Amino acid sequence: MKKVIVLGAGLIGKTIAIDLSRKYDVSCADIQMCALEALSPKFNVTVIPCDLRDKIALNALVKDYDLVIGAVPGFMGFEILKTVIEAGKNVVDISFFPENPFELDALAKKNNVIAVTDCGVAPGLCNIFAGYHHAQEKIIGYECLVGGLPVVREWPFEYKAVFSPADVIEEYTRPANYVENGKPVVKEALSEIEKVVFNEIGELEAFNTDGLRTLAHTMSEVPNMKEKTLRYAGHAGLMKIFHETGLFSKTPVEIKGVSITPLEFTSKLLFPKWKLKPGEEDFTIMRVTIETEKENIIYTLLDRFDKTTNTTSMARTTGYTCTAVAGLILEGKYLRKGISPSEFVGEEKNCYEDVMKYLGERNVVCKKEVITKKELVTI
Amino acid sequence: MKKVIVLGAGLIGKTIAIDLSRKYDVSCADIQMCALEALSPKFNVTVIPCDLRDKIALNALVKDYDLVIGAVPGFMGFEILKTVIEAGKNVVDISFFPENPFELDALAKKNNVIAVTDCGVAPGLCNIFAGYHHAQEKIIGYECLVGGLPVVREWPFEYKAVFSPADVIEEYTRPANYVENGKPVVKEALSEIEKVVFNEIGELEAFNTDGLRTLAHTMSEVPNMKEKTLRYAGHAGLMKIFHETGLFSKTPVEIKGVSITPLEFTSKLLFPKWKLKPGEEDFTIMRVTIETEKENIIYTLLDRFDKTTNTTSMARTTGYTCTAVAGLILEGKYLRKGISPSEFVGEEKNCYEDVMKYLGERNVVCKKEVITKKELVTI
Repeated sequence: MKKVIVLGAGLIGKTIAIDLSRKYDVSCADIQMCALEALSPKFNVTVIPCDLRDKIALNALVKDYDLVIGAVPGFMGFEILKTVIEAGKNVVDISFFPENPFELDALAKKNNVIAVTDCGVAPGLCNIFAGYHHAQEKIIGYECLVGGLPVVREWPFEYKAVFSPADVIEEYTRPANYVENGKPVVKEALSEIEKVVFNEIGELEAFNTDGLRTLAHTMSEVPNMKEKTLRYAGHAGLMKIFHETGLFSKTPVEIKGVSITPLEFTSKLLFPKWKLKPGEEDFTIMRVTIETEKENIIYTLLDRFDKTTNTTSMARTTGYTCTAVAGLILEGKYLRKGISPSEFVGEEKNCYEDVMKYLGERNVVCKKEVITKKELVTI
Repeated sequence: MKKVIVLGAGLIGKTIAIDLSRKYDVSCADIQMCALEALSPKFNVTVIPCDLRDKIALNALVKDYDLVIGAVPGFMGFEILKTVIEAGKNVVDISFFPENPFELDALAKKNNVIAVTDCGVAPGLCNIFAGYHHAQEKIIGYECLVGGLPVVREWPFEYKAVFSPADVIEEYTRPANYVENGKPVVKEALSEIEKVVFNEIGELEAFNTDGLRTLAHTMSEVPNMKEKTLRYAGHAGLMKIFHETGLFSKTPVEIKGVSITPLEFTSKLLFPKWKLKPGEEDFTIMRVTIETEKENIIYTLLDRFDKTTNTTSMARTTGYTCTAVAGLILEGKYLRKGISPSEFVGEEKNCYEDVMKYLGERNVVCKKEVITKKELVTI
């Protein structure tokens, strides 16, 4: 039986480990014992306490496995990915790290490693859609609106972080890289707040965040590309105020002789409030619009918390995209060496189809509509 | 010539010192040299660098003066007032301290001291109105709406602190003590946000703050009494969120081995943004409604920044109420020993009239309207 190790036993890493354990021999490593304990007794997953930032320990740890899954917070993602590639191991990564993964491309190719990055729901699944159509036809526009939200709106944030909260604030501060009329443009995070209505959900707001990531380079000939994050109305305005007040600043402030960044302090206060309570339900909403000369292809994903297994929707949509791609590699269906952002996986028709089938089996349903431009023109 | 010392050379202390220097021999003491330097060359005020929290130094400092003015931030106000009373000196105080001034009443009486407290615009001038009518007739209701605001609304706070910003946050957090239907009630700060429209200003919002202070005790037989703070719409909601997030908390948080209160940290980020820029104009708006069986007496004060002297309206309205009462004591017109919250001054008809005249001479104009209840009943 093939052996897989999942690095990180957070909300999503745990879901990945459980899903893969149905078919493979799975271990899961984390520095936090409490996170591992939640996995240990019920599931067929070997838990390994390990400080993943210790390069020597990590290198030794991954040696025995056929595939590594990176599921750590963004700030440590790149270094861990690098160590795994140095160890010569195939890897699927979902960490939202700020660095450019292609910096590791030569190393991965030299070590004969398949390394799929940004392989969650967004970035991830939306890139697979983009890659698929990019390989099939000429795309002239790409837009992704996506958010993970709690079902119950709780004042004042009406938001719960369904992945690392540090990565959420990173999304709210990092400038957003877009393509407009064939030119790269940079916009402020949290800017261009607009109202959008979704069936079964109602009105949300969409605002700029740096979610295009590799797409801005790998599909740079597409003249218009943007990604926006979805939240309940009011959240983005509030986060803009927190940002303006300096609460998200990484510039240290001297206080009582100690140098502390406002971000460290704010995180301490905010993260407990952004934590999903046990049993608290979330949903994932994503709408990807791919425009060609003749038509608009619209993918809509609305996924909900799984009450039977107490699995958050964000863990389902992110985790199962990752495990779908993990399966492709383990079964020899995806072979491209070097760094592969998820759009590269989508470019291969059979991989795209396998991922869609795999997600469907787990009831993660992406509705696909094709609207010809003739239908769109109404005078 | 009588000698007066002003403790505190902040925005308001400075204005008090300059106003009193027209008629008296005035000194002004502060620990901050930069605050004193702003006073020194142009005005006839002796500046004295002094750490006012040093009780021995303060006791020695006030010895030579006929009257002391307390104009320090609230958190140090009570201890400084106590030291002045211990030194046997008459005092007028505008510090917004949280302690009950009557704790010093026996000491003041024993030392034969006249000590007028809360003697600014609100608390202060509104208490003088209340005290005047309280002595004249039976009051059945008292309401004060008051705020000091910048003329230009600047995103996101649309607010500038026209007195100690620490005292502003204190107002936003301290529970508000009211009297309703003859019973004392405690309400959350920032609660019961309502829209109120003022001539020449437009729509503002009023919300609960602990501004009744001594009135809740000295006039406790008045069955309905409340005080609300005025801001531009949206400010209170935002401050409620800051409060809910824990940003105003005084409970220390451990970070990097140091114990820091969120309030200390937030203050560091917020206060520079709440600072009036040089030449930035403010206004003061106050509406006091005193209800008797037969009529409503409504005082409206709308005062604006003085461009000729670059004096903020908050310094004018707070400072000149204080200097009016200082004059009453220095000229032997107010003689009541012990602690006198400002309503005690208002109870004496000639004092009330002198204060109104004094303010009028400085163009601080309180419009007084009397509306009989017959006029109010419209079917």
